[in-house]
Amino acid sequence: MPAAAPALDQLQHHLHTTRLLGSISSTLYYDQNTVMPAAGAAWRGEQLALLAAQLHERQSSAAYADLVAAAEAELTADAPPQRRRNLQLLRLELDRQCCLDPALVSALARAQSHGNAVWQQARAANDFSAFAPALRQLIALRREQAGQLAAAEPVARSPWEILAQPFEPDISKARLQELFAPLAAQLPGLLEQVAAAPAPSPTQAFDLPEALQESLCSELLDGWGYDGRRCQRSRSAHPFSCTVGPEDFRITTRVVRGQPLSAFLATAHEWGHSLYEQGLPRSDDHFFPWPLGEATSMGVHESQSLFWECRVARSRAFAERWHPRFRQGLGSDPWGGVQGFWRSFNPLRPGLIRVEADELSYSLHIVLRFELELALLEQELPVEELPGQWNRRFKDLLGLVPPSDAEGCLQDIHWAEGLFGYFPSYALGHLISAQISEALEQQIGPIEALVRAGQESALQEWLARSVWPLGRSVNAEQLVEQVTGRPLSSEAFLTYLRAKVGQLAEGA
Amino acid sequence: MPAAAPALDQLQHHLHTTRLLGSISSTLYYDQNTVMPAAGAAWRGEQLALLAAQLHERQSSAAYADLVAAAEAELTADAPPQRRRNLQLLRLELDRQCCLDPALVSALARAQSHGNAVWQQARAANDFSAFAPALRQLIALRREQAGQLAAAEPVARSPWEILAQPFEPDISKARLQELFAPLAAQLPGLLEQVAAAPAPSPTQAFDLPEALQESLCSELLDGWGYDGRRCQRSRSAHPFSCTVGPEDFRITTRVVRGQPLSAFLATAHEWGHSLYEQGLPRSDDHFFPWPLGEATSMGVHESQSLFWECRVARSRAFAERWHPRFRQGLGSDPWGGVQGFWRSFNPLRPGLIRVEADELSYSLHIVLRFELELALLEQELPVEELPGQWNRRFKDLLGLVPPSDAEGCLQDIHWAEGLFGYFPSYALGHLISAQISEALEQQIGPIEALVRAGQESALQEWLARSVWPLGRSVNAEQLVEQVTGRPLSSEAFLTYLRAKVGQLAEGA
Repeated sequence: MPAAAPALDQLQHHLHTTRLLGSISSTLYYDQNTVMPAAGAAWRGEQLALLAAQLHERQSSAAYADLVAAAEAELTADAPPQRRRNLQLLRLELDRQCCLDPALVSALARAQSHGNAVWQQARAANDFSAFAPALRQLIALRREQAGQLAAAEPVARSPWEILAQPFEPDISKARLQELFAPLAAQLPGLLEQVAAAPAPSPTQAFDLPEALQESLCSELLDGWGYDGRRCQRSRSAHPFSCTVGPEDFRITTRVVRGQPLSAFLATAHEWGHSLYEQGLPRSDDHFFPWPLGEATSMGVHESQSLFWECRVARSRAFAERWHPRFRQGLGSDPWGGVQGFWRSFNPLRPGLIRVEADELSYSLHIVLRFELELALLEQELPVEELPGQWNRRFKDLLGLVPPSDAEGCLQDIHWAEGLFGYFPSYALGHLISAQISEALEQQIGPIEALVRAGQESALQEWLARSVWPLGRSVNAEQLVEQVTGRPLSSEAFLTYLRAKVGQLAEGA
Repeated sequence: MPAAAPALDQLQHHLHTTRLLGSISSTLYYDQNTVMPAAGAAWRGEQLALLAAQLHERQSSAAYADLVAAAEAELTADAPPQRRRNLQLLRLELDRQCCLDPALVSALARAQSHGNAVWQQARAANDFSAFAPALRQLIALRREQAGQLAAAEPVARSPWEILAQPFEPDISKARLQELFAPLAAQLPGLLEQVAAAPAPSPTQAFDLPEALQESLCSELLDGWGYDGRRCQRSRSAHPFSCTVGPEDFRITTRVVRGQPLSAFLATAHEWGHSLYEQGLPRSDDHFFPWPLGEATSMGVHESQSLFWECRVARSRAFAERWHPRFRQGLGSDPWGGVQGFWRSFNPLRPGLIRVEADELSYSLHIVLRFELELALLEQELPVEELPGQWNRRFKDLLGLVPPSDAEGCLQDIHWAEGLFGYFPSYALGHLISAQISEALEQQIGPIEALVRAGQESALQEWLARSVWPLGRSVNAEQLVEQVTGRPLSSEAFLTYLRAKVGQLAEGA
């Protein structure tokens, strides 16, 4: 820091401590989900609440607001644009924190905890009516929150848009509708085309031994630059990626009985998240505690995990390379050759459950949720009509009718915690990954060819150069435009899917 | 809490938060030693320092001092003795914190960190002279610390005694000399007696496969009440036990190549520590954040781990029960029968290294260190004479001369961090365990018979009733007197060892 910016120095010190506290929280979260015994949950909840209170205080106190204002006052006309951007992002977040009535924050925290508990029971009992009152309350509180936050928004935004900002900065409903309309129009047709082809082999259920799955995951990571000095892989009930310090990256996976490829693909996915985190500009002291050292959006984050999961691990070339290893490990070939093996990575069959969906149907699950969130938050859809609306639209988009609400509108945890505005990021991840992949291929050649040659390191180097260091210097759409030279659209993703559907049909 | 004690309520709230922060620190420590990648160390150091600063602030601030004083003012003549004792212990700790010059605290923290780093190199290079300046500085700082703390001591204490208080409250040099003199007098003779007998079998080196050692450790814990809902066992470089929350207990072990029983015995040892922690009065809200909910001394803590390691796992009856399982797991019997198997748990041969010592020689390692600490801190022994003094006394006590300082006075980490006053607790653990065992046997019968019948649960129940719930209501010596009806002495331990030496010689 230049000596002429003492407030900036103090602000950096403040942010550094905030980051330390946040990363302590992440460590507790990691411990909780990997090794903590069940009875430790209540105490862990108290520990996390204590840290959350400290974090909130640090991010909304008058002393902090003074620091931000003093650093803004130090900004000269010739200040580096990165500094200006850092302060803008801090200012926006501070203004948002300050808009919120603390009573509402507490009420929301209680409603989320209550919503989660009620949802667990309602889903287990397949009883939407037991969950409806909690959902109604969460919607009301979130609308109230959006109303309070509106004062801090730099442009006019609808309630849903305001709630989506933390996940996808600067996103609008109109833009999402524009991006999603081609998906809703074209994906059902592609699904029908696939449905006409024979089902993927093997048709009989089989499994890979747990120890073999563990070995395969380790080999995958070893080939993709996993460094045990900076990284740790553990087991957890649900796979996740988690950054615990500037040189401390964790991922977790799980072995799912009856789903022989689940752990392998989840490892690829979570490692993609982690690579992005590892590539963010955090080693430079100027960046690490500042906003520019952070991921720019959940959509971009997801694009990085989906790149490694879908573009690489589900590619034909990757299947060619790994088929011998899987066959040798298992001692047999239930896939009947490499094409069958590849197709087992790409079932392309619509199903009821979002988290089990493949590339072709996944986005339709998201379109459905996006439309319903808008209906609930902005179009006065009565909560009790949610199951009917869900089932009707699900039939339209995916051709299936959920036999129960547990497999329908009760399947996700997000709404149970009042998390509205998050789902679209998952689909944006697919679009961004596809468009970035096109740019990558124009510059360094086809992904299939690089993967066939075992040169995933070239893919990493390109991402490390082109995508990861951008941090929050740009938002998601700006990032795509900067990297690909074109505005984000659904075209690259649809082109990719059409090609894949054709390729999979060959030799079926 | 009664409504008539509002300051006490506030104080409890304060202590509760302090305990939350301390347990967050423990979680980070656990993570650091089990899964954290090496590169995470620097950031973890910053996280721990932040928490340490917060803890120090909470334990020494004027606001906290006011709370303690207000709670003391609320104490009426008929207040429960437990409340009085809690406040006395808090007052003593607060007075000690307040005596210390913050500049000294910082200087000590730096010297400890420096001492540790220098010691690592000096030990690796077997170069005591490289470590001597750091040790000299640590001694000077610790003497200064003892000088500052003297003002808070309720009775006159020597510098070494003051430094030993955190580990062994109320201990004195004279008392330790009284307790240790019979050990120094009688153990060498016992060692000579054993040396005359043939060496324990198997004479050839062998090992147990890692997976078998893991299974044996799990089975051991399952038989000793390990509850996966409240406990977690992990791997770490050095075994330890760690309490992370009132219902969250962790232990770690390691498999040591070439030492087939190391993991098994370490599991027994660490589980003993954990059982004591689990049995402390922490489930009752009145106790958990208060001093009475804590372990009363390191010596008592060690007595609980040594009880399960030495009195149970190294007993003849235990060997009889487990020999078939070890033999079956290994597919052979390198011990040549149960007596050989039992003797492999009890080598009783003097060695150079404390942490590898058996029951017979362990205390002599401690006597040596205790004497040298007194010489360094209170008798002006020049630091450069430490190696010579070490080797001369080692020969007197254990009959061996260390071939290098790395295997002599450089072997332990304690002095490298200026930790003086800690070692005696290890030997006290043996004495306390032996004397408590005598009382237990008078009340519920011989340990050997109970172990032979697989009734370790009876041992646990007795300890859970007689020892663990005492917390810090009494100090270590008071605990022993309360549980056994006699003042602590070395007699029970020496009686036990004499019997064991005789038993081991049978059928040799």
